[in-house]
Amino acid sequence: MDHERDARVISALTAELPEGTVITNPDSLQAYRRDRAEDPAAGTPLAVIRAGSTEDVQAAVRIAAREGVGIVPRGAGSGLSGGATAVDGAIVISLERMRAITIDPAVQMATVQPGAFNAEVKAAAAEHGLWYPPDPSSQEFCSIGGNIATNAGGLCCVKYGVTTDYVLGLTVVLADGKAVTLGGPRLKDVAGLSLTKLFVGSEGTLGIVTEAVLRLVPARLTPTTLVAVFPTVDGAIRAVVDIKAAMRPSMLEFMDRVTINAVEDLLRMDLDRTAAAMLIVQSDEPTEVATAQIAAIESACEAHGATEVYATTDPDESEALIEARRQAIPAVERRGALLLEDVGVPLPRLGDLIEGMRGIAERRGVEIAVVAHAGDGNTHPLIVLDSTDVDQRERAAVAFGEVMDLAIGLGGTITGEHGVGRLKQPWLADYLGDDVLELNLRIKNALDPQGILNPGALLPTP
Amino acid sequence: MDHERDARVISALTAELPEGTVITNPDSLQAYRRDRAEDPAAGTPLAVIRAGSTEDVQAAVRIAAREGVGIVPRGAGSGLSGGATAVDGAIVISLERMRAITIDPAVQMATVQPGAFNAEVKAAAAEHGLWYPPDPSSQEFCSIGGNIATNAGGLCCVKYGVTTDYVLGLTVVLADGKAVTLGGPRLKDVAGLSLTKLFVGSEGTLGIVTEAVLRLVPARLTPTTLVAVFPTVDGAIRAVVDIKAAMRPSMLEFMDRVTINAVEDLLRMDLDRTAAAMLIVQSDEPTEVATAQIAAIESACEAHGATEVYATTDPDESEALIEARRQAIPAVERRGALLLEDVGVPLPRLGDLIEGMRGIAERRGVEIAVVAHAGDGNTHPLIVLDSTDVDQRERAAVAFGEVMDLAIGLGGTITGEHGVGRLKQPWLADYLGDDVLELNLRIKNALDPQGILNPGALLPTP
Repeated sequence: MDHERDARVISALTAELPEGTVITNPDSLQAYRRDRAEDPAAGTPLAVIRAGSTEDVQAAVRIAAREGVGIVPRGAGSGLSGGATAVDGAIVISLERMRAITIDPAVQMATVQPGAFNAEVKAAAAEHGLWYPPDPSSQEFCSIGGNIATNAGGLCCVKYGVTTDYVLGLTVVLADGKAVTLGGPRLKDVAGLSLTKLFVGSEGTLGIVTEAVLRLVPARLTPTTLVAVFPTVDGAIRAVVDIKAAMRPSMLEFMDRVTINAVEDLLRMDLDRTAAAMLIVQSDEPTEVATAQIAAIESACEAHGATEVYATTDPDESEALIEARRQAIPAVERRGALLLEDVGVPLPRLGDLIEGMRGIAERRGVEIAVVAHAGDGNTHPLIVLDSTDVDQRERAAVAFGEVMDLAIGLGGTITGEHGVGRLKQPWLADYLGDDVLELNLRIKNALDPQGILNPGALLPTP
Repeated sequence: MDHERDARVISALTAELPEGTVITNPDSLQAYRRDRAEDPAAGTPLAVIRAGSTEDVQAAVRIAAREGVGIVPRGAGSGLSGGATAVDGAIVISLERMRAITIDPAVQMATVQPGAFNAEVKAAAAEHGLWYPPDPSSQEFCSIGGNIATNAGGLCCVKYGVTTDYVLGLTVVLADGKAVTLGGPRLKDVAGLSLTKLFVGSEGTLGIVTEAVLRLVPARLTPTTLVAVFPTVDGAIRAVVDIKAAMRPSMLEFMDRVTINAVEDLLRMDLDRTAAAMLIVQSDEPTEVATAQIAAIESACEAHGATEVYATTDPDESEALIEARRQAIPAVERRGALLLEDVGVPLPRLGDLIEGMRGIAERRGVEIAVVAHAGDGNTHPLIVLDSTDVDQRERAAVAFGEVMDLAIGLGGTITGEHGVGRLKQPWLADYLGDDVLELNLRIKNALDPQGILNPGALLPTP
């Protein structure tokens, strides 16, 4: 700790930023220490900047750069990998107040500030008959800035792709406080390196996004939703593989027994508590094709032993079924503290991944609930633990690592859509290998030579 | 020229690479001096490596790095911006022999070597009922490696996106000869910076792609194709804007009178030579939706004065109409040498762009034929010139720059899908601005500190 420097930083921030923007009150700082990963090792920031503009962010970054102080950018704080976990003595730059959304229907694009929630962008687009596809389960309370930082996925990306597929342009404040505009409202643009794409998914380690131009598409048709209940996990996974080989469903989700029961505890919607697995599948094709697809999905499920298959075209009923899936993490959270995984594998290895996780759960004596964007091979094993039980906490931590090792061994990734953050940082080198990690660090060093941007997140600190 | 060094390089290449891989015969070198941009200023390489493997590329790059010799990577030589124009004394690394394609239907992915042609990947995918969407007009003779280097677009990208949207993984030989694998057969993967996306569109300036994992999708339905003929360019553009606002067509192409006549000269297919503009539009939705879309497209065209509208569901007839569009550049090429543009603007400015180009053509006394991926706002003005006419050549060069200035002024880009290459390099700074250009150079410098990879292409040399 360098108290003189800290005092200088606070005094400069207070002097240069608009009144009410700088928070230093210890009680108020508490709310900015953790994101949804609830890292017990979270530090306490020196100050929080509630930025109101790109210029506010620039001013704060310039001061941090001058003094060599770390910066933790923060959106809605809904991150699941600890990408916004505060660092002792750093400045948290919160974008929560920057929430403007402008829709341009003529070019089918949205210009948004990073604090706007995903669902708010969707709602604004819908007013013009347009749609912003990326749909993390947290869409009601996650910010577009966080979505861009993690290259967030969601439920419909099995058909419609992930956040990066919809980002056309970014305004970014760099590590020296300079603001640059990358890309823009152009559907095709190959002039210069693909820097827009590089910043998407960079978890605040290369710059701070203060505005984004997003591509919208015409509103889609009302989907038909099918739910199928299986007595075995294996049957459900085989059905997933068959469905995926035959068509492009607009949703293909999986929940295991623990998850089904947790959701049923929370929502009381008459889910089959004895089922080993449940699939939630959608088709949003025009009626003739959707009808054929739903029939084919039904056959695939029945061929692999589904005991119940139910389809509906009613939008409210559909929404209720999908809500069951979206509530999976909050529902399981009620059973204890969670260590949240986000591992993915090539689809044919999905069965091996889930089987392997069952073995890890048994061996380590922990409960692992599995919910998955099955169509993408992307799973969210939720390790449930009693955080007051030190022994169990240790076993859960071991299991957390073992699940990632398992995914790597199956040709998969340690994170499909939540980001590396701080929680998974120690596993990145194992996944990428030394050469690719070194390449990551060369880029980081070229853009943030002082290492002040989100230190400890995504990449190892030197 | 450093003759001793040149001799050392050739001797090392010959010693370390398999027999028949190294070309130094002056006659044989000629074929590797230019790509389709036909740059009269093309240099003569010291040697050409016809690489057969990643290891061959590594060996050549290591020698070049050791001796500080430039490298020009080359695919099929079909590039239109001079990205593969040879540099005096450099080593051309040709990937033309590396053409393996493996399709994995279980994960709906293709693993391809860079020399494989786009159409070959499509054909291999089709054998499994799958489809690789990106479709440059040159698909029959352009390589996947070149497509990746330029982030190539095409005709269907108005609905299906561009090359980067389909690249999941790359094997890349870096500037020091090290080979790394970025990404891989995983649909969602956010572990580490988005390096795969950074390399796509980098025009061989950051590394040499020696293998790619591409995402495939299920084969699409047979499209319905509509052709509409307009007495005014303005009417055609208005129709484009209306169509785009109402739906997602799978193709939305524009040809002006000069292009129509050039194509008619070449193909003799009874196009209306008096028309000011022609649109070629497709819908590949299921029948009920396609029928409604085609009816709406027809109405939009007629509302804006189309004198003839014709639609067909016959695949051969569709293919013939699209072939008219694909042959546009070769057809206009028969009228003289071409300076090929690739400027794009936000869709509402498309009319201003085309109007502005007409003014430039008149002012400079050159003919500009315009063909466009109109739905993306991406145009290919083709400046036709008699290359023996020095005065006209100079006026054409001025017009070439003015068209890019015009696009920049309209909020557009100097290149939508062909790449900056060497031809457009001098305009990049105007487009990006100093700060973003500097950011590009920082990345380049971090990955290729000696500046040996494709010197002079895309980015300015120091």
